[in-house]
Amino acid sequence: MSWLKIVGLGPGADSMITPEVTAALDQATDVVGYVPYVERVAPRAGLTRHGSDNREEIRRAEAALEMACDGRRVVVVSSGDPGVFAMASAVFEALEAGRPEWRELDIQVLPGISAMLAASARAGAPLGHDFCCINLSDNLKPWALIEKRLRLAAQADFAMAFYNPRSKSRPVGFERTLEVLIDECEPERVIIFARAVSTPEESIRVVALGDATPEMADMRTLVIVGSKQTRLIERSGAPLVYTPRSVA
Amino acid sequence: MSWLKIVGLGPGADSMITPEVTAALDQATDVVGYVPYVERVAPRAGLTRHGSDNREEIRRAEAALEMACDGRRVVVVSSGDPGVFAMASAVFEALEAGRPEWRELDIQVLPGISAMLAASARAGAPLGHDFCCINLSDNLKPWALIEKRLRLAAQADFAMAFYNPRSKSRPVGFERTLEVLIDECEPERVIIFARAVSTPEESIRVVALGDATPEMADMRTLVIVGSKQTRLIERSGAPLVYTPRSVA
Repeated sequence: MSWLKIVGLGPGADSMITPEVTAALDQATDVVGYVPYVERVAPRAGLTRHGSDNREEIRRAEAALEMACDGRRVVVVSSGDPGVFAMASAVFEALEAGRPEWRELDIQVLPGISAMLAASARAGAPLGHDFCCINLSDNLKPWALIEKRLRLAAQADFAMAFYNPRSKSRPVGFERTLEVLIDECEPERVIIFARAVSTPEESIRVVALGDATPEMADMRTLVIVGSKQTRLIERSGAPLVYTPRSVA
Repeated sequence: MSWLKIVGLGPGADSMITPEVTAALDQATDVVGYVPYVERVAPRAGLTRHGSDNREEIRRAEAALEMACDGRRVVVVSSGDPGVFAMASAVFEALEAGRPEWRELDIQVLPGISAMLAASARAGAPLGHDFCCINLSDNLKPWALIEKRLRLAAQADFAMAFYNPRSKSRPVGFERTLEVLIDECEPERVIIFARAVSTPEESIRVVALGDATPEMADMRTLVIVGSKQTRLIERSGAPLVYTPRSVA
């Protein structure tokens, strides 16, 4: 039986990969994805690893669908969760535009620990109350829409998780994000820079919004901005950051 | 060495529990939580299971902190992810208000597959673009704030995930939620009722907002409302629901 499974490898540590994802990888004939994610799957006899470049999501999705149509057992890997700014939507875009046969494939999405949940856990529980999740890259949507969403999210007093805050090709977007937040929120607002969570390069930095600078984020950073209610618990080690369950 | 780990058991299936959570449960002397979640941990020699009632979060958190202070290895269990409307914030509320010794404990939060990610995966990828996550219970915040957040989220065109849509003690809240959504969104908007995902009682229902009724949700239902961009792919089986990565 052929199939296509779109799976999440979690943020980095093998100990955060779910058993159902591990089982899918064990049964696969082909694994498809961005090179560094494909390399997280150990090579073995009977498994072909197809690594491709960052900007090739649709071509990669089409190749995966075609392989499943040819009778293979194909796993498409994403970091984190495949449904949060990752390969699941890319596969469904390709599926909708593609050959009618693709629609009859056995397709499953297997969730993973998203970067946002892993970062939140490391800091404490900053997403413990209502929150939103925004991709700050303007590659696939206009900056005006990002700014509108930031302002409305601040007015709703959501905590916010930001994906793709900053890259070499988009050096100014996160600077503008901080300007919008400074305009909408008080300077004491808590902001968390969680980089490469669960990998050897992990770092967690907690600062006040007024002290945040663009260079604190890069492409491996998940940024969380607290709501008005978010609090810090000081202790000997790093402070704990959490958002209470109640609003009076 | 004593410690306190606040862990997520995922939505229901054992195959979605991460290895690091399983390891914590294997090493624990005590497991603490709401009765049905504690019962998901198999009994064994050397492990005491402390089940408590739904409304007892703070008392339960205090008991867990006190046990860790007494030298025990304590796991606090939540369903889904412990940082999303679950026990992590309750433990930190108790910690902040409690004895100074509690702050020096070795405390970790171990993320889990949240109901929202599991529900999204089963439907396709409805959370594949910017989204928000709102707890619809007005036990811990005023209804006016929920309504404000719903309206701003609709204006931001976020997809939305709703926790705790409806219970016997709150029969009208979800009815009012649907009224607000009908007021802000077009009747064709996609709404997903994902009940008891990954358990034997799982059901996924996809309807247009204009056809949604309050009885479609209960306390075991995670509700996802698509954005304006969310699309359905029809095929022989259940349709796939996804939100594209781009907005023109």
